[in-house]
Amino acid sequence: MLPTITAFERSPDRGRGLARDLRVRWALEEVGQPYEVRLLSFSAMKEPAHRQRQPFGQIPTYEEDDLALFESGAIVFHIAERYGSDPQGRLLPNDAKARARAITWMFAALNTVEPPIFELAIGRLVEGDKTWWEARRPILEDRVRQRLDALSSRLGHADWLDGAFSAGDLLMVTVLRRLHGTGLLDAYPNLGAYIARGEARPAYKRAFEDQLAVFNRGA
Amino acid sequence: MLPTITAFERSPDRGRGLARDLRVRWALEEVGQPYEVRLLSFSAMKEPAHRQRQPFGQIPTYEEDDLALFESGAIVFHIAERYGSDPQGRLLPNDAKARARAITWMFAALNTVEPPIFELAIGRLVEGDKTWWEARRPILEDRVRQRLDALSSRLGHADWLDGAFSAGDLLMVTVLRRLHGTGLLDAYPNLGAYIARGEARPAYKRAFEDQLAVFNRGA
Repeated sequence: MLPTITAFERSPDRGRGLARDLRVRWALEEVGQPYEVRLLSFSAMKEPAHRQRQPFGQIPTYEEDDLALFESGAIVFHIAERYGSDPQGRLLPNDAKARARAITWMFAALNTVEPPIFELAIGRLVEGDKTWWEARRPILEDRVRQRLDALSSRLGHADWLDGAFSAGDLLMVTVLRRLHGTGLLDAYPNLGAYIARGEARPAYKRAFEDQLAVFNRGA
Repeated sequence: MLPTITAFERSPDRGRGLARDLRVRWALEEVGQPYEVRLLSFSAMKEPAHRQRQPFGQIPTYEEDDLALFESGAIVFHIAERYGSDPQGRLLPNDAKARARAITWMFAALNTVEPPIFELAIGRLVEGDKTWWEARRPILEDRVRQRLDALSSRLGHADWLDGAFSAGDLLMVTVLRRLHGTGLLDAYPNLGAYIARGEARPAYKRAFEDQLAVFNRGA
């Protein structure tokens, strides 16, 4: 049985690939593992049948035989361990120390860099029409810039965050992509090039096209 | 050489154990691994020497021989793999599927439950004196409640999130503790009992006392 993931039936980002199933699709493409997709409407996501798999009523989920997982970070990690730990170390290095450092970047992407970026996006969405938004926006943007400053300094002229491309880069690129169109990346050419490097990978392109095809089918 | 972690020289939470070194201390206590602590002032955290170990200028870090890690989630994971994967499976189960599910809860704690809780805390801190705060607060509290509703439903009457205590519970308990004093936990007696169950573990108590001793020494 092929692994099955869930994704939005109609992605709210209009095909820009910001939904978190992109991360999982990309990881599966990197390791060359075919998969199936079950599309869910917003109402189906809140139903008990889905909550059984995903307690918070979100996508993506991942099912493989009788194993059911959620959380894009955990699913990417599982894919890396299950399918990506061949001698090529396609998503996590085989060397124990390099592996621990790559896992550090996975958590840094999701727990340090993503939160302020997500807050800026959700603030615009939920509070964009409030009287206080224009006063709050610079506060949120400064929090994002602090993270980008630090990340840009660390990356320097390297291609990836720690040696070869890893699941840490995969997650970090998907996190940073949410800044496209905000202008905040303009001050960090090396981060712009880093995102472009990720988006140029054949596995990324296949993942992106597949999620876009879902959107276009429904459009 | 014992592993060395970093922590605040003076914790801004006044000894309440909300700084992220508590997670790492707790994990080390669960597996019975002694460790050393290097205390850092706020200014030292922003110096290049620390940024070399922690690009974002935060605590905790973790050093073991020539391995240097950051991100509390990644450090807890490393401790679980390095010291906790004995036949007792003290922080991660040995069974592959149960292990993948425990890792899912680690990511859920840090990427789904912590962000809205942290935003509420940081909002109060940074915007508590702004004209808009009283209008924003219910929006932030509702986001927290959505997560608590889902988590409380999933936990039900169980002791831990998926079978035996795991690194997923360790992180989730530390995330939920930040709500002490907000009143938001009152509607979820099972989550209150879950936190208390974590705080009653001997390893937690040792970790908490150790970080408190640092604060009291400086007070």
